[in-house]
Amino acid sequence: MHEDPGAGAGPVAHAAQPIRRATSTVLHTHRDFPGLADVAARIHALADHLETRVCSTDDRMMQMDTVGRIVRYSPVSGSRNAIAAPLHLCRVGVGIGVEGTVRFSAAHQGPPGVVHAGVAAMILDVALADANMVAGVPGMTAGLTLRYHRPIPLRRDLIVRARHASGDGRKAVSRGEIWLGSDLCVSAEGLFIVPREGVPRDWCRPE
Amino acid sequence: MHEDPGAGAGPVAHAAQPIRRATSTVLHTHRDFPGLADVAARIHALADHLETRVCSTDDRMMQMDTVGRIVRYSPVSGSRNAIAAPLHLCRVGVGIGVEGTVRFSAAHQGPPGVVHAGVAAMILDVALADANMVAGVPGMTAGLTLRYHRPIPLRRDLIVRARHASGDGRKAVSRGEIWLGSDLCVSAEGLFIVPREGVPRDWCRPE
Repeated sequence: MHEDPGAGAGPVAHAAQPIRRATSTVLHTHRDFPGLADVAARIHALADHLETRVCSTDDRMMQMDTVGRIVRYSPVSGSRNAIAAPLHLCRVGVGIGVEGTVRFSAAHQGPPGVVHAGVAAMILDVALADANMVAGVPGMTAGLTLRYHRPIPLRRDLIVRARHASGDGRKAVSRGEIWLGSDLCVSAEGLFIVPREGVPRDWCRPE
Repeated sequence: MHEDPGAGAGPVAHAAQPIRRATSTVLHTHRDFPGLADVAARIHALADHLETRVCSTDDRMMQMDTVGRIVRYSPVSGSRNAIAAPLHLCRVGVGIGVEGTVRFSAAHQGPPGVVHAGVAAMILDVALADANMVAGVPGMTAGLTLRYHRPIPLRRDLIVRARHASGDGRKAVSRGEIWLGSDLCVSAEGLFIVPREGVPRDWCRPE
């Protein structure tokens, strides 16, 4: 029932987990459930309580950066960010690319029963960036081209793959896809630019 | 403190609001705050409580569809979906396009202080789709091309614009941008295909 965010996860990732559950259950709750307003009030009260202990936004953004773990706060795949998708990418080979899985729920629905195209774009941006990163050219997104070949179903295990394709100075190109088994759902190509000042060493390393 | 989801918002949108606050405050909480685990346990308990009253996933997906309000559950802009961004789009002119605003917080951060490129892609997919929809050709995303011109800052009011560009049978092309004042941050072009069976009349109408 309570998905574990992972053995090495810290207290923030553990706290993000019930928020994901609350997001999903509210989406599925009957709108005429009389207890809904009370639940909302209780979560407001918990947020009030936490706000007494928050860092300033500037402190938090700095901390996200300097601890080299900004990927854990990612809105796309961060274990500490309750809006992130359950995307798990790992390196494939040495300097080749990344591969992983994702399974979407109703919270990610666009058309009925289908993953929102914008969510798929977001996932592929991360996979393409990570593929360049593991190839030693961690850059910022400069261009993305996506083709949608077939609808991506909700509640199915999907495979996400991306690999570094070419590089030229500070430019790096990568290509990737989202697959349902052997069916190609979305393909993408990205152009990334390595900042002149570089990026922190662990900036966007897949965990 | 408690942002109002809007005068016409229903109980689900009101319940999504504190979940957004919890997401944000957890991201900003000191990881050594001893009360964090207790807050997590309390939110788990509230999710447990709600789960006793949820629709089945199939029922909910059907309801999202048939009530013609699926846009309110959108993972990108839905007032009822706690993972959605605070994107508000309105029609511009008659059959021309859409325009709106968005302001991102630390939950949407990619590089330090900057909006995640994948989040920007997701927002533009919605704007481009809506632009075609108000032009009378509501389609599914078939292709997206994005160019990132400059980093998009967090915590600034951004303008999102999109307009229908051309159509050919069931194909529709639209173009759009994210602006910071007069500075172009991201530009996009999308190809959308109208399903043979059409889409529900109110399927993706900007609210």
